[in-house]
Amino acid sequence: MNDFTFQSPTKFVFGRGAHREAGRLAAELGAKKVLVLYGGGSAVQNGTLPAVLQSLDAAGLDYLSAGGVQPNPGSSFVYSAIEGAREEGVDMLLAVGGGSVIDTAKAVALGVPYPGDFLDFYRGRPVEEALPVGVVLTIPAAGSEGSPNSVITDEERRIKKGAKGEALRPKFAVLDPELTFTLSKYQSACGISDMMAHIFERYFTKTPENAVTDRLCEGLLLAIKDVAMRVIIDSEDYEAQAALMWAGMLAHNDLCGVGREQDWGSHALAHQISALYDSAHGAALAVIFPAWLKYVYTEDIDRFVRFAQNVWGISPGGDKEQTALAGIAKYEEFLRGIGMPTRLSQLDVPEEGIPQLTELAFALGNTTIGNFKRLTPADVEAVYRLAL
Amino acid sequence: MNDFTFQSPTKFVFGRGAHREAGRLAAELGAKKVLVLYGGGSAVQNGTLPAVLQSLDAAGLDYLSAGGVQPNPGSSFVYSAIEGAREEGVDMLLAVGGGSVIDTAKAVALGVPYPGDFLDFYRGRPVEEALPVGVVLTIPAAGSEGSPNSVITDEERRIKKGAKGEALRPKFAVLDPELTFTLSKYQSACGISDMMAHIFERYFTKTPENAVTDRLCEGLLLAIKDVAMRVIIDSEDYEAQAALMWAGMLAHNDLCGVGREQDWGSHALAHQISALYDSAHGAALAVIFPAWLKYVYTEDIDRFVRFAQNVWGISPGGDKEQTALAGIAKYEEFLRGIGMPTRLSQLDVPEEGIPQLTELAFALGNTTIGNFKRLTPADVEAVYRLAL
Repeated sequence: MNDFTFQSPTKFVFGRGAHREAGRLAAELGAKKVLVLYGGGSAVQNGTLPAVLQSLDAAGLDYLSAGGVQPNPGSSFVYSAIEGAREEGVDMLLAVGGGSVIDTAKAVALGVPYPGDFLDFYRGRPVEEALPVGVVLTIPAAGSEGSPNSVITDEERRIKKGAKGEALRPKFAVLDPELTFTLSKYQSACGISDMMAHIFERYFTKTPENAVTDRLCEGLLLAIKDVAMRVIIDSEDYEAQAALMWAGMLAHNDLCGVGREQDWGSHALAHQISALYDSAHGAALAVIFPAWLKYVYTEDIDRFVRFAQNVWGISPGGDKEQTALAGIAKYEEFLRGIGMPTRLSQLDVPEEGIPQLTELAFALGNTTIGNFKRLTPADVEAVYRLAL
Repeated sequence: MNDFTFQSPTKFVFGRGAHREAGRLAAELGAKKVLVLYGGGSAVQNGTLPAVLQSLDAAGLDYLSAGGVQPNPGSSFVYSAIEGAREEGVDMLLAVGGGSVIDTAKAVALGVPYPGDFLDFYRGRPVEEALPVGVVLTIPAAGSEGSPNSVITDEERRIKKGAKGEALRPKFAVLDPELTFTLSKYQSACGISDMMAHIFERYFTKTPENAVTDRLCEGLLLAIKDVAMRVIIDSEDYEAQAALMWAGMLAHNDLCGVGREQDWGSHALAHQISALYDSAHGAALAVIFPAWLKYVYTEDIDRFVRFAQNVWGISPGGDKEQTALAGIAKYEEFLRGIGMPTRLSQLDVPEEGIPQLTELAFALGNTTIGNFKRLTPADVEAVYRLAL
């Protein structure tokens, strides 16, 4: 196990009706004026936003709100929100939504106290200070409600970039599974794909053995598998939605990644697809991850045998290569079963687009991507081609 | 899943040499004068305590220290430490040791700012305020380094009692697996028994389904099983000790208990054995838990079938009762394999002692114990008899 520091101080309030606690939780933090961010109309239409605003009123807090955060959120929205927040003297951000809204709130929280361009933090400047961020989660998947991460698209360059720092961990996150009842099958499936990918990025590692982290990763994957199809069949299955909502947080607060090197190569490849073709993040991951697994499994076949046996129930004792490939095939079959695409063509990405995707993946001057296998441009192109 | 609030804000610093970070971490908290508590001589002899004190010096902190905390720590030590801490103007506790030392530090941290008897908090008074507690862990098992709990023996009445409250969570915990290299086989085995018991108390529940928590419990049990025998064979197996040290924390910071009712009946029964016969906590649990499992499995046979299959590798498809009992038998065999007692006689508890143990378990006026099955005095006596 590598040495590590782990601290996950976010307060999670989980359960039916929990979103009505947002005002009380914000007041506990000492907030005076809250900027509430949200996305499309669903938070308004299903009554979540009005209930949250009412709870802020009831807690005696001043607030303003801004909707219209888009999936794969962009920098222009952030710039204008930072400006507005400064003018209004906002001292806290409240995200009502999924990963896009939360990541946007984190970007604004970073930008308000910083005199320069907030994108500096997405180009490597260390994160130190940010306004406090609270979350009312409506789409489980991104895990941003418990993570120190934020991903924003630099709209000028069309590049998705991440910032990371403990100041970005939400102070509280309200997880109310009933808010997910209105998600479409496709949204739920994208979320499932995304949270599994968050675990994979931490599970496929070459760092020293780490019995606990491996078993936690496998346990979480099994739990997701246990309930995934139930939410596709019935979006109002409370227990299944609750399990996914909690799993999505645990998949990304880094508990499953301590003491080891992580990969994140597949995320880098998927981000380029989202940036150029505006695909849903979870769908892009569902296309890239099986291809990546097939490309890299020979790097550590024993890890893939373990994955096949412990997660996908492949019987022990068989040929290692066959077992490893059978595990990957089961995962791909699972993705198709929940309605995810697993081929680039399903995302309208043509073969001729691969060179541009590859170029974009190295646009920032990096020479390799990922850790499990350090992918060169030729490797990246090969992974994209495996996803054709 | 039941509604819940979960917050585990402790900062964990994990790895080789991490104990030398204690001073820096205490200074980060703003401490000025630290009371360092430790137990027997091992922390002194193996150089841990001097290194920790040196790190406090290096961080410019004033401190005093008090050794001699005993296993199953008692109230008289706590009273005198509270008095000393008040006189010296101590503003932080640093525990260098295992569960007994940490629980004692928490009791002192509670008592210093409280004008009454600190034991009030162990008799049900809500915990609100406590001095900050830091930990340098030397014995993994109790999980107190990440938990909001403290157990102290009221020496006047010879009763072990617990206090619980978020103010009792350590602010930081330094986990350095090399500090465990000097543990005896028996100490390690007691720790393994204890951390498994912490998971069992949360796993055997009748509350609604909870796919994630169940899978995390099973994953953690599997990880402990994966490495347990290795530390018994070679106490300097770094990876195995590291896994146990981390597992011990996760088994008790309540991540494995969210969203469900917990039991804690077996702990109550084991506490009486420790109080009357001064047995090691983990050893008492190794005697009680198999007996309790055998007594209660018919309450929810499907949960025991799942336990047998997912944790102990019993093949699916067999007779439920046989499968359930085979799982329990495997666990008992595992305990014997690591050198734990599984019978009261091995703890020098005679059959004639059972009525007194039973009486003590209900000494505080409770009429039942535990939740999975609400044990009456007759049930408790029967569990003790199954452990003969």
